[in-house]
Amino acid sequence: MFQTFDVTARPEQGPPRLAALRKELAAEGLDGFLVPRADAHQGEYVAPHDERLAWLTGFTGSAGFCAVLRDIAGVFIDGRYRTQVKRQVAADYTPVPWPEVQLADWLKEQLPDGGKIGFDPWLHAAGQITALTQDLKGSGITLAQCGNLVDRIWQDQPAPPMQPVSAHPLDHAGESADEKCARLAKGLRDAGQAAAVITLPDSIMWLLNIRGSDVARNPVAHGFAILHSDARVDLFMAAGKLARLDGHFGSSVSVHAPEAFLDATAAINGSVAADSGTVPQIVADALGERMVPAGDPCALPKARKNAAEIEGSAAAHLRDGAAIAEMLAWLDAQPPGTITEIDVVKKLEALRREDPALCDISFETIAGTGENGAVMHYRVTGETDTTLQDGHLLVLDSGGQYLDGTTDITRTIAIGTPGEEERAAFTRVLQGMIAMSRLRWPKGLAGRDIECIGRMPLWLAGQDFNHGLGHGVGAYLSVHEGPQRLARTSHVPFEPGMILSNEPGYYREGAFGIRIENLLVVEQAPALDSGDPEREMLCWRTLTFAPIDRRLVNASMLTADETSWLDSYHQEVLAKIGPQLSPAAQVWLDAATAPL
Amino acid sequence: MFQTFDVTARPEQGPPRLAALRKELAAEGLDGFLVPRADAHQGEYVAPHDERLAWLTGFTGSAGFCAVLRDIAGVFIDGRYRTQVKRQVAADYTPVPWPEVQLADWLKEQLPDGGKIGFDPWLHAAGQITALTQDLKGSGITLAQCGNLVDRIWQDQPAPPMQPVSAHPLDHAGESADEKCARLAKGLRDAGQAAAVITLPDSIMWLLNIRGSDVARNPVAHGFAILHSDARVDLFMAAGKLARLDGHFGSSVSVHAPEAFLDATAAINGSVAADSGTVPQIVADALGERMVPAGDPCALPKARKNAAEIEGSAAAHLRDGAAIAEMLAWLDAQPPGTITEIDVVKKLEALRREDPALCDISFETIAGTGENGAVMHYRVTGETDTTLQDGHLLVLDSGGQYLDGTTDITRTIAIGTPGEEERAAFTRVLQGMIAMSRLRWPKGLAGRDIECIGRMPLWLAGQDFNHGLGHGVGAYLSVHEGPQRLARTSHVPFEPGMILSNEPGYYREGAFGIRIENLLVVEQAPALDSGDPEREMLCWRTLTFAPIDRRLVNASMLTADETSWLDSYHQEVLAKIGPQLSPAAQVWLDAATAPL
Repeated sequence: MFQTFDVTARPEQGPPRLAALRKELAAEGLDGFLVPRADAHQGEYVAPHDERLAWLTGFTGSAGFCAVLRDIAGVFIDGRYRTQVKRQVAADYTPVPWPEVQLADWLKEQLPDGGKIGFDPWLHAAGQITALTQDLKGSGITLAQCGNLVDRIWQDQPAPPMQPVSAHPLDHAGESADEKCARLAKGLRDAGQAAAVITLPDSIMWLLNIRGSDVARNPVAHGFAILHSDARVDLFMAAGKLARLDGHFGSSVSVHAPEAFLDATAAINGSVAADSGTVPQIVADALGERMVPAGDPCALPKARKNAAEIEGSAAAHLRDGAAIAEMLAWLDAQPPGTITEIDVVKKLEALRREDPALCDISFETIAGTGENGAVMHYRVTGETDTTLQDGHLLVLDSGGQYLDGTTDITRTIAIGTPGEEERAAFTRVLQGMIAMSRLRWPKGLAGRDIECIGRMPLWLAGQDFNHGLGHGVGAYLSVHEGPQRLARTSHVPFEPGMILSNEPGYYREGAFGIRIENLLVVEQAPALDSGDPEREMLCWRTLTFAPIDRRLVNASMLTADETSWLDSYHQEVLAKIGPQLSPAAQVWLDAATAPL
Repeated sequence: MFQTFDVTARPEQGPPRLAALRKELAAEGLDGFLVPRADAHQGEYVAPHDERLAWLTGFTGSAGFCAVLRDIAGVFIDGRYRTQVKRQVAADYTPVPWPEVQLADWLKEQLPDGGKIGFDPWLHAAGQITALTQDLKGSGITLAQCGNLVDRIWQDQPAPPMQPVSAHPLDHAGESADEKCARLAKGLRDAGQAAAVITLPDSIMWLLNIRGSDVARNPVAHGFAILHSDARVDLFMAAGKLARLDGHFGSSVSVHAPEAFLDATAAINGSVAADSGTVPQIVADALGERMVPAGDPCALPKARKNAAEIEGSAAAHLRDGAAIAEMLAWLDAQPPGTITEIDVVKKLEALRREDPALCDISFETIAGTGENGAVMHYRVTGETDTTLQDGHLLVLDSGGQYLDGTTDITRTIAIGTPGEEERAAFTRVLQGMIAMSRLRWPKGLAGRDIECIGRMPLWLAGQDFNHGLGHGVGAYLSVHEGPQRLARTSHVPFEPGMILSNEPGYYREGAFGIRIENLLVVEQAPALDSGDPEREMLCWRTLTFAPIDRRLVNASMLTADETSWLDSYHQEVLAKIGPQLSPAAQVWLDAATAPL
């Protein structure tokens, strides 16, 4: 199993560690120290070596930080984790609602006479430190770079990850590393820049057509890179990880020890592009005046998938959809009251693992039944595991990392006989999901310009959900990939080849949850007879094929267009994944994809 | 008639005036002079005294400017006026596509060795001059304040307007001027500001509960005001305009000559709020370091209409809707080929004028038949007047300034038998208009978050339109009123009481045009059984009641919800305006509002 169901942190671990950290504070003459949930690469997942926040506080969420002062330790968490944090941290820690309360304001309140706050300059992005410094102006509170105080007290801290890197073959990548480097180097020359510093692991993986396994769920290896304007690349990565690559890199890639990175950035002659939102403060310091704040140069090219990446992703989705269908067929055969959430997670992972191209799951499977379905980022453990009961809805959000693509799919399944309120809400969520799937829109628009289309049916009923409609997805890379998003906050225009999720939901706390998610890829929309000839428009092509639970659809609420969309989607599901299924699942799929 | 059909400017008037202006340039030692279409109040309409751009160039559009250099004179016009400008200006003037070409870039190209460009500091907003100065940095081109060179050569320039001001009664305004001043003054005190400078006429009218008629179509008087943090107001307006007011102002308002304004701003002790987007450069100079860039303090309070303003507007809309219905009934009785666009405009104005509360039309009526309907800002003249022919669509966009409210309505009418393509496009426009009318949405959202709802049906057919979905509307004030807009560029959250237009359209150049427009007011949405109790939502209440042409609706394209919306809207139209109509029009309305 990739997934485990252990409770990985306990509230009681926190207090003694906090006491030890405060001794270090005193020894350093500091009034506080910042413990982010981040490594030097600002990824969504961190290696066990970098789980400092969870080790110190007990809080295991994927975002947040702790500000440890001499008398108080604030754990800053966003809306998703308000309930979780209370269960996970001891009373010595004070949960702080963030971003409603900003760190600078909180520090000013706690330290009215000023003070000195330490931070590890590898773990904080330059933009973050600049903003914090600005916000603290005039308060008498100063920031001071220092070594990592948590590492000093963490006796059995795991070693940094050292997993092997493999080549990502050209038939999946669709473009050689040399071509990518040449293309990006031209951009640097056009902008008059000598080099770009790249510290995001998925950007390095994409640029050099390699994949790693230094962190769970994301096929990336930790390292740093400098792309020079002559298309040479200096890669800073432990040689031990690269042993299997065997001639994959051409002569334009030179490998160095990670320890050489800072000195190498200092030696670049000319201006250097760096993403101030993610580059560590210590790297920005090394670059000094030469740093040009620019986005990561790989971000947009990586987001625009080429034909090989799209077809790889489509193929991975068909196999993944078949595993989902097998799983749904099995699930329907289990009487209510006989299996639990963990049984579902195990069964699904077992079915996915039958595919030799599966390398990992793409995130911890969310399997929440009944009221657990309303917890958006629910991770089942042995302690929360709940039996699927008659009348429950089961929210099942999962995905796989396949050699040819990354998947992410959510289905909501009726256990036994669903209630009418649940069916009505499910139908509205489905209507939003269909409306977005059917959309075509003028080229140039971004997530914020169209996201509401997926919410409107819920809005009309006075309902809504508190997350974005969708996120970008990588090609055998991160399941959450920017810069585009299908969200009110995203102003990055959609371009052909971008893959996004379309996942409206509905959550009634203490009662039930609903989410339906397909992945879509942006395409040039074909011309229509009625279309304005001068208007370039984009549309979606659906990548995910797996049945949507018809028992939860109140067909009388659908328009003819919506019914017709669902029926033809199901016809496609049957045609595309039916042939891959076991005989029993084929019979099940025939019924599950019948017209409404 | 308020509206005229004259051609008000001719291309041939331009060249001799340009020659005269260039003599002034030489005399002043300038290399250029800027002629905006603006007065000191940055309104949408200007008085004849301020029609410098039209007088000089012949171009009569409502936006744009001319940059007169010694060898070239660029007329900067946006996308709406590309065709019009070619007809209106002589070859001595060079149309420049704007904002695609920015003034600074154009000046740098024309004056590679630098130069000195004069401008009248009353006619340019401070923000505009700051940005232009910034953009010209390093070019050797400098800006120089000077007197208005056009005024110097314009022999028969009309005098500045001097029309009487009247009181806006409390039962329409809903809040006394004293209360408004006290409310806004508190905001100034809370922000630590000594005063606010107000240069927008509609803000001054709103604040002091007065109305004027210095410019056509907008019931405003030109003037300036200083609101002090103790709620005193200094009003700078020619005393002659105020003769009829007779004790309307309380003791907190002091009237001064407009000429005293600049000195008075110089005398304010403390920081002064001013809207850098609209305050004249010369006023910003007088304020100097004391100026705090802030929005106009009246803008948001004015946009949030109170109950009296909403009910006044609703009442005005019912009478206006009756005039529209009489007009549509009359129009249907005229055989194709027998009347022209001007006949329609005259008939409509005559019907509106039967209402003693009508003070003006709220903008020049757009009556475009056939291909004229595709010209979004079409103003019919004796030269363009076109006969309504069988198969035409007539776009009729008009409004009235009534003592109790401002209206703005567009209907598109089939002349004879419409084509199927026209009907399909009309139905899509209607679907977008209905979708927006039916919407409810979470509080906190702005125009950009929901505008696409009104475009989606067109998008699905590969169609779209090149204007925003809607604009704010005043309460017996400007028909285009900010700060809220129903547009992709607007980030001002909607609040209860804001009035907006909902006017999707479709335009096929050289063929036909379609637009359907109702005014809506934002309301707190009533709770629904299905609604999330914690979610505050807003919705629209429709103000406009007039039939929508059923002959143009392809009923087979509508969903049940859309059909039901249109049928109940028509039922309401019948109930609300039917009783006001002539017997013949009542018969017509019965048929025009029958269920689909």
